[in-house]
Amino acid sequence: MSRLRCVVAYDGTDFAGWQKQGPRRTVQGALESAIHRVTGEVVMVVGAGRTDAGVHASGQAVHFDTEWNRPCPGLERALNAVLPRDVAVADLKPAPPGFHARYSALGRWYRYTVWNAPVRAPLLRRTSLHVPMALDVSAMRQAGEMLLGEHDFGAFGRPVGPSGGTVRRLDRCDVERDGGAVRLDFEANAFLRHQVRRMVGLLLEVGLGRVPARAAADVVLGAPGAIVPRRVAPQGLVLLAVSYPPDDRMTESPRRATEQGSDG
Amino acid sequence: MSRLRCVVAYDGTDFAGWQKQGPRRTVQGALESAIHRVTGEVVMVVGAGRTDAGVHASGQAVHFDTEWNRPCPGLERALNAVLPRDVAVADLKPAPPGFHARYSALGRWYRYTVWNAPVRAPLLRRTSLHVPMALDVSAMRQAGEMLLGEHDFGAFGRPVGPSGGTVRRLDRCDVERDGGAVRLDFEANAFLRHQVRRMVGLLLEVGLGRVPARAAADVVLGAPGAIVPRRVAPQGLVLLAVSYPPDDRMTESPRRATEQGSDG
Repeated sequence: MSRLRCVVAYDGTDFAGWQKQGPRRTVQGALESAIHRVTGEVVMVVGAGRTDAGVHASGQAVHFDTEWNRPCPGLERALNAVLPRDVAVADLKPAPPGFHARYSALGRWYRYTVWNAPVRAPLLRRTSLHVPMALDVSAMRQAGEMLLGEHDFGAFGRPVGPSGGTVRRLDRCDVERDGGAVRLDFEANAFLRHQVRRMVGLLLEVGLGRVPARAAADVVLGAPGAIVPRRVAPQGLVLLAVSYPPDDRMTESPRRATEQGSDG
Repeated sequence: MSRLRCVVAYDGTDFAGWQKQGPRRTVQGALESAIHRVTGEVVMVVGAGRTDAGVHASGQAVHFDTEWNRPCPGLERALNAVLPRDVAVADLKPAPPGFHARYSALGRWYRYTVWNAPVRAPLLRRTSLHVPMALDVSAMRQAGEMLLGEHDFGAFGRPVGPSGGTVRRLDRCDVERDGGAVRLDFEANAFLRHQVRRMVGLLLEVGLGRVPARAAADVVLGAPGAIVPRRVAPQGLVLLAVSYPPDDRMTESPRRATEQGSDG
């Protein structure tokens, strides 16, 4: 038995999220079916981020344990041949000792895309949220800076596990305009469930001038009267990458709450 | 009766192309239905480029004649409210005297996107062609340069009308790599039906090293033994923009063969 790791990309539109749940179509389920078809084995695939229904990924990280002992490129090709068109695996290789896709992860990078123009963009409708009113990107950036650092993000989401804490460390919150597109990039050691989508909800309220930029500080400080950030639609969100320690310094530290992945 | 013009964007995936044909779902049909629902009028919408099934647009140009005499922004909003999610109209305004979306157009700009990486990209599968083998972009660029200028492009496609000629003037053929994406940009006064997709087919043969770059010259010169370029899949193609003379120099010159739009 050996542990393999790979990167997974998917269009989340037609999936009920990452995690297997009954008869619904999920990314985890599609991967496990493909592995079963190719190897005959029943495996459990573990992903770094349990993305929600409609959320996409270009760099989800996963591992699974298998009896497969032939070269990895052949398995990768075989999996891509049987996977549905909206999922693909890349960079399949043996995992270093101690590697666990979720618990070894040091950081996750999510991007949310807003199409900010009066008229919607049909070609971007599956991968962005349309906001017709002009956004004040510099105010959003100011608010985003107040979210940086280690905070109790409990107002933005709940932990993935029932007993986890809600303290996380946000390392990056960038807001960039590129023509009609406004891209929000978030990097953290881990995210609470729905945290990214609620942070985007807060930043949009700021960008629309409905609340001042300092409202962001009130939310992370749990100030009385702080607004309750609303969650934006899933289709603008993509899990871009998951980072790990160097292979020779991999240590699995199971069930550390702050290292648990989520759907962002 | 007045003539209005606008820009139309659409995701071509679920359309049987631009042009109305029987009961099939087309962009022209969707626009005419929306105009009928809003104004009660039966109009004919004329587009600059008759894009084929599966081809997209972010900057298709159209005109139609209507009795509507209230401000255009209200009509634009009403149309976008009743149009399906995969079509949108923008910049709706009165057309200058003599304006005809197809015959007044001076140029069309199409872009074809290739995803050139070993593993397919699920999020780009509706808007790109996957080519797993590495492409030699500089050879493709060399071949593209041989297509520039005024030539008989008859080997690349047929005219849209039954009696049109096949001479066109290609003003731009750029090939650029951006990570895994290779973008091919084509600008011409007009294109023959399938011309862009056959030019891409030829450039891909060059990029894969199957034919030398000078094969492109052989095709446009009609040299004996020149290869017959194959047409690539439609989903990588987008009509980005259509250009017109300044409003005060608009002249409609109906049925000039070289000015007839096509699906590229």
